[in-house]
Amino acid sequence: MKVEFVNPFINGLLNTLSMMAQTELRAGKPKLKDDAVARGDVSGVIGMVGAQVQGSLSITFEENLALHVMEKMLGKKVTELNHEVADMVGEITNMICGSAKGELSEKGYEFNMATPAVVTGKNHTINHQVDGPRVILPFESDFGRAFIEICFNK
Amino acid sequence: MKVEFVNPFINGLLNTLSMMAQTELRAGKPKLKDDAVARGDVSGVIGMVGAQVQGSLSITFEENLALHVMEKMLGKKVTELNHEVADMVGEITNMICGSAKGELSEKGYEFNMATPAVVTGKNHTINHQVDGPRVILPFESDFGRAFIEICFNK
Repeated sequence: MKVEFVNPFINGLLNTLSMMAQTELRAGKPKLKDDAVARGDVSGVIGMVGAQVQGSLSITFEENLALHVMEKMLGKKVTELNHEVADMVGEITNMICGSAKGELSEKGYEFNMATPAVVTGKNHTINHQVDGPRVILPFESDFGRAFIEICFNK
Repeated sequence: MKVEFVNPFINGLLNTLSMMAQTELRAGKPKLKDDAVARGDVSGVIGMVGAQVQGSLSITFEENLALHVMEKMLGKKVTELNHEVADMVGEITNMICGSAKGELSEKGYEFNMATPAVVTGKNHTINHQVDGPRVILPFESDFGRAFIEICFNK
């Protein structure tokens, strides 16, 4: 997977959380999957389909970070990963992917997005099933960690 | 969502497990999401994108059933939801969706499939984020339960 494919998703997350939740994340070093497993408590998963490529993306949050973003975005203090937090993570997933889609479209890569699904459950892992490369992007913040995992079949 | 949209996915799961793992599931009554939550231990998630529709599908297995199918499909007894089981669930997800895609294409509904992602984690839930209807299809077997959740934006 080319770097120019990855950066738009990193920017998508950083910009979305900065604008919508005044929360600054620090992007760590991208890792090829297999030497890294991302665990978290709530995740958004979204599929991408273009004429030439298929892929999927997941964005996983640790509980504390998700609750912090929820409070900042909706001005509402919640103490557990309820349906409202799941909806918010679904929205964020759409925003990251939509933002990257726009940026990649300008570079000549076109794809459409499926409907996002949100996974809730303490300490789960997500594994993208594809023959192509899988990349994990780690993020840190003062409130907890997040991970994006992306794969495309080329 | 129309019934003709749902049945191909039911048949896809029943046929896949019967053929590949000699495991018979009994399909329960489809339920509209909101009065039902599917919990399980390992799930495949896949996005679908057509010219007119976007949607996603998840197939969730209880641990016991996933381990049974693993043993039947690969002739290998495993005792935990490891990477091999995740790969198998990814394969099954592809097969269900591919089988339904063929059947729906004959009826004039065309979509392409994204890459599947597999979620592992005790007792997680998956929630599809869409304005359209969300349908849960429950399945029972002698070895545990499975759930398909499907949504399309129309």
